[in-house]
Amino acid sequence: MNEFDFLKKLRERARAGGPGSGVVRGIGDDAAVLTSSPDRNVVISTDLLLEDVDFRLATTRPDLLGHKALAVSLSDIAAMGARPRWALLSIAVTEAVWQSDFLDQFYKGFFQLADRLGVKLIGGDLSKTDAKIAVDSIVLGESSTGHEVMRAGARPGDQIYVTGFLGDAAAGLRLLERGARIHTNSTGRRETNSVDHLLLRQLQPDPRVGWGILLGEQQLATSMIDISDGLSSDLNHLCAESSVGALVDASRLPIDSVVREICGRRALDPLMLALHGGEDYELLFTVAPENVSRLPKRVDAVSVTRIGEIKEAADGVQISEGAKVWKLDPGGWEHFSE
Amino acid sequence: MNEFDFLKKLRERARAGGPGSGVVRGIGDDAAVLTSSPDRNVVISTDLLLEDVDFRLATTRPDLLGHKALAVSLSDIAAMGARPRWALLSIAVTEAVWQSDFLDQFYKGFFQLADRLGVKLIGGDLSKTDAKIAVDSIVLGESSTGHEVMRAGARPGDQIYVTGFLGDAAAGLRLLERGARIHTNSTGRRETNSVDHLLLRQLQPDPRVGWGILLGEQQLATSMIDISDGLSSDLNHLCAESSVGALVDASRLPIDSVVREICGRRALDPLMLALHGGEDYELLFTVAPENVSRLPKRVDAVSVTRIGEIKEAADGVQISEGAKVWKLDPGGWEHFSE
Repeated sequence: MNEFDFLKKLRERARAGGPGSGVVRGIGDDAAVLTSSPDRNVVISTDLLLEDVDFRLATTRPDLLGHKALAVSLSDIAAMGARPRWALLSIAVTEAVWQSDFLDQFYKGFFQLADRLGVKLIGGDLSKTDAKIAVDSIVLGESSTGHEVMRAGARPGDQIYVTGFLGDAAAGLRLLERGARIHTNSTGRRETNSVDHLLLRQLQPDPRVGWGILLGEQQLATSMIDISDGLSSDLNHLCAESSVGALVDASRLPIDSVVREICGRRALDPLMLALHGGEDYELLFTVAPENVSRLPKRVDAVSVTRIGEIKEAADGVQISEGAKVWKLDPGGWEHFSE
Repeated sequence: MNEFDFLKKLRERARAGGPGSGVVRGIGDDAAVLTSSPDRNVVISTDLLLEDVDFRLATTRPDLLGHKALAVSLSDIAAMGARPRWALLSIAVTEAVWQSDFLDQFYKGFFQLADRLGVKLIGGDLSKTDAKIAVDSIVLGESSTGHEVMRAGARPGDQIYVTGFLGDAAAGLRLLERGARIHTNSTGRRETNSVDHLLLRQLQPDPRVGWGILLGEQQLATSMIDISDGLSSDLNHLCAESSVGALVDASRLPIDSVVREICGRRALDPLMLALHGGEDYELLFTVAPENVSRLPKRVDAVSVTRIGEIKEAADGVQISEGAKVWKLDPGGWEHFSE
């Protein structure tokens, strides 16, 4: 059984219960939604970050890791259209890491992001291990009842949008793999060096919390997911949950000129990074045609780009490049028709 | 800096915020308490379980581990006087474990306990690692506003109680270390063998959820903590948070005859196990003198025992054995006076 089938089985198993359970949404979305009061719900998500799976000590810094641990779960809360409020953090470290200033730096990065967004650390667990570092990041948010934006909800004719740029984090990962390293004093806020910019997009992603809150509060999105696995995978997840198809226009994908430039020099295809590269933590959402004009141009200086349209389920998930249309499969694309 | 000092610093750092934060109780109790609606709060706790730190694959079974992962966090919710409602589970396993039936068995044990208590699995994360198994168990509960039972709240004169028996889990751990193994078909519910009984008290602890709910709802306890580190440590935690002292009567400690018998045969001191052995997941709580008569004899067939009395802070945390009184330090005891 593969991971997808296992999670599907688990979701079926967990679903048993129903009314009175207080569960608005359980397994199967970016975060779970619980009934809290008549007018507010609680949204909660958790993400594991494992050494040598999700990060390497040789290529990141403890403060960037503390930031990222929080950021990935904040991104899930944003993808529900909710406002993040509280966090818990479980972390297992070796004795050697414990004796170093790793945790001081880790929490420094964590609190810098948490304070900026008004998120409170309310608990967690701290444990020593003789194995690798493991971090579990838990974030809770709040939403007005019924304002949560699920993966399900997209309808044919809805316009597909993404925040920011795609492929940056994947380009950053390629640079790390080829030996590039972040300069010790980079802050991620006003970097001037294009390599540093991409490395930080990988190591210190900025979750689109402002966009998430706006889209939820103003009920502008019919569906939403955050792009953690890559556009191709996450668009397929969204379409599967919404029982729809989609057509993405390759020429509309927001690819930063920095990515194009770096790719050009390193024989990488920027389109492949934008489609299949993960960890951008941008938001992918759909908007009904009548609401398109209500969408702001920017939130927190981050713009959005319309990249395609929701289609009938029978059309599948496709991408057009000029006159050609291809099937857009998760993590890859297959020739479909001319 | 030791772990205690680090957590103290973290708690101070996290405290920054205050009114409007929605946090009734943050770091420093068995679970955090969040404002949910005018009449209800949400209580949340998380616990890491790490292979070769908290469990060994050679001495447990996957289904027992699934049970225990949920049980330890349920115990934290019970210790707040709250009702557990929802759970999330993050788990990292190796490819070899993934290919086995480990997770099927793990979730079987998890759901058996969850279903019995009406707790819903609403999310989590599943990741592959090349290191050891790591499980992070998150449980959320609900309480009527103001009915949460904190560690702080004990007053001099309050009577000190524990549920069930003390030292069972520590005795079970000693038996495991000496080569005893659980029989494959033991269910933990109607064991007849005394060794199996103690092994299951270690491997499949039964959180005192019924007692926790009752003590919270009926506002019978002035303070509460669950006994995960051992009575001596956890009583000291409770007294520190309440700014009080305590006097425990050694002769009153509830030690199962099975523990006395096993200890007698193996040259172990049952009193040491009861005082300093961890992982009993019993509840330790205090009751104001005027409420002692309202305490039920049993909840879910689990009885409680009065083991001592809360004293002034200046008296410290002590234990009497006959005419002798000793200082009861966390994890050990020191000669104090004759």
